Amino acid sequence: MITSGAIEALELVGKSFLDAGDVVVVEGPTYLGAIQSFRSFEATIEAVPLDGDGLQVDELERRIERGLRPKLVYAIPDHQNPAGVTLSAERRTVLVELARTHGFLVVEDVAYRELGFAGQALPSLWSLAPDAVVQAGTTSKTLFPGVRLGWAVAPPDVAARLVAAKQTTDQCAGAFGQRLFEEFQRRGWIDEQLAASRALYERKCARLLAALEASMPAGARWTTPHGGFFSWLTLPNVDTTELAQRAVERSVGIVPGSLFFPDGRGADSVRLSFSLVDENQVDEGIARLAALLHLEA
Amino acid sequence: MITSGAIEALELVGKSFLDAGDVVVVEGPTYLGAIQSFRSFEATIEAVPLDGDGLQVDELERRIERGLRPKLVYAIPDHQNPAGVTLSAERRTVLVELARTHGFLVVEDVAYRELGFAGQALPSLWSLAPDAVVQAGTTSKTLFPGVRLGWAVAPPDVAARLVAAKQTTDQCAGAFGQRLFEEFQRRGWIDEQLAASRALYERKCARLLAALEASMPAGARWTTPHGGFFSWLTLPNVDTTELAQRAVERSVGIVPGSLFFPDGRGADSVRLSFSLVDENQVDEGIARLAALLHLEA
Repeated sequence: MITSGAIEALELVGKSFLDAGDVVVVEGPTYLGAIQSFRSFEATIEAVPLDGDGLQVDELERRIERGLRPKLVYAIPDHQNPAGVTLSAERRTVLVELARTHGFLVVEDVAYRELGFAGQALPSLWSLAPDAVVQAGTTSKTLFPGVRLGWAVAPPDVAARLVAAKQTTDQCAGAFGQRLFEEFQRRGWIDEQLAASRALYERKCARLLAALEASMPAGARWTTPHGGFFSWLTLPNVDTTELAQRAVERSVGIVPGSLFFPDGRGADSVRLSFSLVDENQVDEGIARLAALLHLEA
Repeated sequence: MITSGAIEALELVGKSFLDAGDVVVVEGPTYLGAIQSFRSFEATIEAVPLDGDGLQVDELERRIERGLRPKLVYAIPDHQNPAGVTLSAERRTVLVELARTHGFLVVEDVAYRELGFAGQALPSLWSLAPDAVVQAGTTSKTLFPGVRLGWAVAPPDVAARLVAAKQTTDQCAGAFGQRLFEEFQRRGWIDEQLAASRALYERKCARLLAALEASMPAGARWTTPHGGFFSWLTLPNVDTTELAQRAVERSVGIVPGSLFFPDGRGADSVRLSFSLVDENQVDEGIARLAALLHLEA
């Protein structure tokens, strides 16, 4: 199904499947918009931690054994927002097997999948289990932020419900944007654009990581992205909501970590985004952030 | 608020205001998509009849006096879908006063408002009562069917709720379509297009009305549109669901009337649309329909 961006796929899944009190498992941290979306259906949102290899599927399994009954598990396996990590191949297999065994639907958000710096990706969850996964994608991160063009792929019975829900949501995705996409595809511009984007973001990311290495105080740690837009910086004992406020006064935009959890955790972390910022301003931004942290220490 | 078509405004109003069992009053007949949208929120939908002057506001008032408590009243005051009638100036005043007195919100769908053959329109409900009306509009009928670009205007507290609901629905309307609109506006193309559309649809409508006059059986009656896309044909004692089926076998598309009511009424009526059909095929279409009716009689 063609959608008006990936967020609409979440909306339609929620509209079709969620009742108040249903349990949705998300990665902790996860995409803020997903938390808001599932909340709008009065779902109970449970965050399962991730680490450098993505969602801790063993922890998810333990919670299921202890009685957790997820209806949906929402995951961003590739270059996750906000953590910048990628779910390992082994964990992908475990996750879809858990879905089959325990009868939940996985919603796989592939917004950053095509933005791996190496240009390759691990098998998608949908490719591993087309019977148990709804994949939601978007062109907003790769091609057309202003067109609102995405897609959802799902098992036939799920897709039928999403299509019915879309009728009363916005009826259909814009045909004009779809024609644009078709024409870009035909001319080979999509592959060109992706190659250029990957190279650009890889440079920006390398710059960010070097700047962090050079200036962060002892105890700080951060993820090493291999694609996407984000690194997740953890600053033990720092109140990052206050830090973000002071950073923005110095024209440095960071997002406090607690916004990416449904339960108030993440207060000692921030999302660093290297996508929009001018390449030459990365060093200066991190230097200003480091100065704030040294002041504070 | 800029929306992805008018249907999204209905979705957002429903999401923001409707709980299961809430009463929504619609015109009988009304836009099928609105019935589906309000139904998706498990609202109780009550159709109040319309006549040649639009919604019978005195009947609405009587029902309120007898205990009906609408949360929303959904109306298409101009060149209504599917009836092709326009709400009179007097009734507009009564309707918004009822809204103020009884505390319901009016949702005014202006999809066809700019397509009056004379190029003019009565005061919109929103202009009469910006405190009690959400106006939902779209460019799909006038300019860009493939762009999904519409708008909602609402009292500030209502608009704030719609904007919040849109965050998790599709986040924002496409910027590219908005730029297109801006450019069309700047070049004067919108006014040109509207003038051309009005003239085209007026010719098609005249052709339709003449064909009906020439060939419909005794007892048939139909509305006389002054804009928009539709005339509403009533055929006493005819089962129009069956008629529509037989008509489509002869390549004539009509929509059976019961689809435009929430309660199964309208079985003796059909919507005739003169918008898409080639001007020169109107006569032939009505002739085929008349032949079916004469066969049946």
